[in-house]
Parts: sequence; C-alpha cells; structure tokens
Amino acid sequence: MRKNILIAPFAALLTLTPLSAQEPPKQEYPSPNAIVDAAPANDWQAIAASDLLVMDLAPDAKGEARRVVIQLMPPPFSQGWIGNIRKLAAAKFWDGTSINRVQDNYVVQWGDAGYDNPESGETEQKALPEGLVEVPESGYVNNSYDIEQLISKKISEHVSDEGLKVSVEEIMFHPRDSYTEGWTFFAGWPIAGDGDSYWPVHCYGMVGVGRNLSPNTGSGAELYTVIGHAPRHLDRNIAVVGRIIEGIEHLSSLPRGKGQLGFYADPKKRVPIQSIRLGTALPDAEQPQFEYLSTDSKAFAQYADARANRRDPFFIKPAGGADICNIPVPVRRVKAD
Amino acid sequence: MRKNILIAPFAALLTLTPLSAQEPPKQEYPSPNAIVDAAPANDWQAIAASDLLVMDLAPDAKGEARRVVIQLMPPPFSQGWIGNIRKLAAAKFWDGTSINRVQDNYVVQWGDAGYDNPESGETEQKALPEGLVEVPESGYVNNSYDIEQLISKKISEHVSDEGLKVSVEEIMFHPRDSYTEGWTFFAGWPIAGDGDSYWPVHCYGMVGVGRNLSPNTGSGAELYTVIGHAPRHLDRNIAVVGRIIEGIEHLSSLPRGKGQLGFYADPKKRVPIQSIRLGTALPDAEQPQFEYLSTDSKAFAQYADARANRRDPFFIKPAGGADICNIPVPVRRVKAD
Repeated sequence: MRKNILIAPFAALLTLTPLSAQEPPKQEYPSPNAIVDAAPANDWQAIAASDLLVMDLAPDAKGEARRVVIQLMPPPFSQGWIGNIRKLAAAKFWDGTSINRVQDNYVVQWGDAGYDNPESGETEQKALPEGLVEVPESGYVNNSYDIEQLISKKISEHVSDEGLKVSVEEIMFHPRDSYTEGWTFFAGWPIAGDGDSYWPVHCYGMVGVGRNLSPNTGSGAELYTVIGHAPRHLDRNIAVVGRIIEGIEHLSSLPRGKGQLGFYADPKKRVPIQSIRLGTALPDAEQPQFEYLSTDSKAFAQYADARANRRDPFFIKPAGGADICNIPVPVRRVKAD
Repeated sequence: MRKNILIAPFAALLTLTPLSAQEPPKQEYPSPNAIVDAAPANDWQAIAASDLLVMDLAPDAKGEARRVVIQLMPPPFSQGWIGNIRKLAAAKFWDGTSINRVQDNYVVQWGDAGYDNPESGETEQKALPEGLVEVPESGYVNNSYDIEQLISKKISEHVSDEGLKVSVEEIMFHPRDSYTEGWTFFAGWPIAGDGDSYWPVHCYGMVGVGRNLSPNTGSGAELYTVIGHAPRHLDRNIAVVGRIIEGIEHLSSLPRGKGQLGFYADPKKRVPIQSIRLGTALPDAEQPQFEYLSTDSKAFAQYADARANRRDPFFIKPAGGADICNIPVPVRRVKAD
C-alpha cells in the first residue's frame, strides 16, 4: 500500500487550529456565495461543449420546455463508460426513451423502459449501437500515480501560500469522513480516496450508470441522478460519469413512482425524453456555455472554508467542517456578450 | 469539559476490526430492509398520537388528497419550541397559511406568508396565539448529564452482548463525522455531540423552525423540512423539532420556487395548507398509528451495520461506514387489526 497522502501530512495541524483562535469580527466574513461572486475571472474554467450532454424532456403540463444539462467527468475517471455514452448520444439512442424511476430521497433514472410486443408477448429492448465496450469493475476506481502527484502538488502550493487565511488542510483533504480515509477536489470534481485508489463520489446531482448484478457494470445506456442525501454506499459499486449542472429541478420535482424502487407502476407516468445530444451536436449558437470555479484557486479554497465554517450573519455556530457533498463546486452559465 | 464518552471508549477497537476479517460468504448477509422486516414485534415502539402533527395540503391538480405526518422530537430536545408548536396547532394557526418556499436540494418551508392589505399598503401577518415562549439560543443543544449516562449504558450493554455479530462501536458512536466528534441514536433519533453537549441533526426529512437573525430563535410558527443533502451547517444554528414520517413526497416533489432562496415569486404558486392538527385532535378512528424500530434494539444495530456495510447481492464493495443521515430510523404505519 502506498503512502496515504490524503491523510498523512496534516493530521497534526488539525488539532492545532481550533476555530475560535484569532477569529476576526463577524462582518469580515463574506458568505460562500459572495466569495464565489467576487472570484477573479481567470479563476473560472470553461467547460467544453464536447463534455456536455443536453437532455430535452417532453414539455411539462403547461407546455414549458424542460432542458437538463449534464457535464461528463474528465479523465482519468470512468472514461470507458463515458466513451459509450458519447456513442449512445451520437446514435440518438435515448430519443423516444423515458424517465422511468423517481424514488424519493434517492434517484431519478432514465433509459429504455422496453416495449411490450403484443405479438411475441415479450418485452423488447432497443438495440444498442455498435462499438460499446464492456468496462470491468476495476474501472470504478483509479489508482494512477499521476493523481496522487497532482493532489500532493496542490496541497503543497496551498500550504506554502501564506497569504491564504483559510485552513487549507481542512479543504484539501479531510480525515473525518464517514466513508473513506480522505477526499479532495480534482479538476473541478469531488473525489474520495484511501491512499491506494481514488474514486468519484455520489453527491446530489451526480450522474451514474445503472447496471445489473455483478459482474455486470452497465453500458451507460441506463443512467440515473441523485436527488436526495448522498448515497455514498454506491461509491465504488457503480460508475459515476457526470453531474447535472442545469435543470435538475425538472427531474427532482417529478412525481415519485409508486412501484418497487420508485419505478412508475403506470407506464403512462413515464416522462418522454425527446433527445439527448452531446453539446457539440447542437448548432454553434445553441451550444451551452458553462464554466466552473477552479478547485485549485484561492477563491475555491476560501469558498470551501466558508461552507465548512459559516460565519455570515445568519449563523451563530460555525460547524468546523463540512462533508464533501456539502461543498458543491460552483458552476455558472457564461453570459452572452 | 466533561469526558467525551462519544469518542473515548472505543477508539482503539476501531483499528482492530477491519471489515475483511472473518467475513462470512455473501449470502449470509440480509439487506437492511430484510433485517427491519424480520425484527421482532417487541423491538417496535409505538409513537403517541400526541407526538404527531397531521398536515393536510389542498388536494393536488388531480383532486388527490395530500397528507403529511410529522413526528415531534421527544424530551429533552427542543421542547420550548415544541410546546409552542402544540399551542399553534391547537389554535389552528396554520389553517389557511401555505407552503411558500421550495428550494432545490435544500428545504420546503411553510407558514404565514402575510397578506398585502390594499388599504394600508402594508403586509399584515396573522396574530400568534397567546402563551408562546421565547426560547433562548442555548436551547439548540442539550447538556444534560442524563443523556450521557443513557448513551454510555447503551454502549456498555451492546459491547457486553457477545451474541451480537456487528461492530457496535461503529454504530453507537462514530468518530469519522465531518461535522462533530461523534454521533449516536437516542430514543429513536439521530443526535450529534462533542462531549459537552448534544443536539439533533438536520437529516433529510427533519423539520426545523424558521427564524430571523440572531438572537431571534423563531417561535415555531414558521417551519421547514429538508429535501436534499443534509444541511448540517444548520445544526446548532436552528431548532430541529421533528421529522416527516409519511407523505414527504407531497413536499419534495413540489415545483421549485423561482424567487430568491426558492420562495415562490408568484404568490399563486403557493400551496394552501388546509389544516395542521395534533394527532390527538383527530377523531379516535382517524388518529394515525405509527411505530419506530427501537434504536436500542439488536435489530437496529444490525440494520445500522448493514447500512454501513452493504453486502447484499447488488454490492461488491462495502463502504465500511455510513454517515448518520444515511441510517434513517425505520418508521412504519401500524396496520389495523
């Protein structure tokens, strides 16, 4: 087992920096949102249209459009499934499929619900496009040494930056997590690790790949998103491939399914999916433009600290910590010029 | 500072019981739900109708009834606010008020939205009933020695019970929490503690008391419930008074508000509350009957262990831990004879 860089270097520091020491007056502390709003423009990283999936549901009962935008994870995580997902979108596989499952405090799931063929009496599934790969279970985690080095470098940079008035050791790794030995943010994404390997986590809005029993790992044709408290027992058990960055309310506010596991017992309740496209498949002028706050930036470190220690006027007792899913990475739509 | 009984006694044990040691074959492990279903009848504790609030919303667009049932917290937690809430319900204060705020991944909030009086040009509020108390901020936590003793006794009983094949030290306290030094379950409720005091936590479905800026603590007339990832930075900053035990889908699936903080910008979107009553105010035959799985029972310890270490067939990698909000206390409706 490798040296556990996520938890080793700063364990001592933690006990030396109680929250109450040297606490300036309340008004000096901006809220997390105010920190994000004040972040310099070059702390924001563009999200490529090729890393976006645009899902259009059928309009709602009042005829209003329902668009959901998903950002796919960057390498080195879950790339086998993400390659499949790009092929499925290019093949327009999801057009005419549906949202089939809405389980309260858990997930919304979509894909091909199957078609009951009255002639054969069988439930038939759409054919998958050619060229999809079967990803092994080892793909749920990553054990690239490069990641360790990158994280290590990032921690060193922050710690050596004396101008940063936040407890970086609380932000850049976290030893008091109920599920793992530590976590951090990597290239704009929350990841957990145990010193041997690293993996993306199931926070609110994350998108994962439905699958059958092991050793099946799912193709990517069946997807879900988290609409409740982070079900982190799914980490390392299912592939996490992205997150919803706009329009999650079109999924999270759907009526809950009354069948087992929240599937719609009545097929008529399913919500039709008109199309799912890669951002680059849309006409240039319609391609969604988003950016995220660099998780290597000083502004992000300050934001994360403020999430962990709320000192804006409403709060009387800063928590002294936060769980990784309670520090959502800020993402915003780029305004047209 | 008192001896920290939540974290002290078993810290050593934790490192001695890795998950992989002595792990029996998979099929021996039932799912969390199967454990709950198999729990003996006398592990279930009745919830008194006097500890329930029954909220009836206006019927939905299809004319279907929407009832939400809330269980109030037991002593010694938050009793000042809960006394107020009983008085507000008895005075029928909430009848004709509304759900005013639905913020995605955060809260649904209800109470008196005020009435714009065209004559005075002012927003007028309903008068509160007489006899409500102002609860001080110290009421957010409890530092009763009795609680420490009860928890300590419970831990001792489990540890001395050699027939129990679960890692009780993982269940009865938890040192790897991002927000506190430890947590446990007390009389059917998740609570966190730091050795000096104990407090209820903001998990999914918990009900809290809206308030203005400190030192205001809220009367109880304005309530909210959590419909997303546990916002535990609110712990010790707002009173937690109960939890929704039935019908949360009538709140969590409401359209999100488009105003600031998720308030409905258009007053017409507010959802009318027909009535909120204490369970005992309903006719005998209509009083809801619920029970919860005793958090002191062996079945609950096994359930909590199974939530922390999923080994039922779908899972390939047990997490080795769970966060307190991912171990919801099982509550069920009592079937009529």
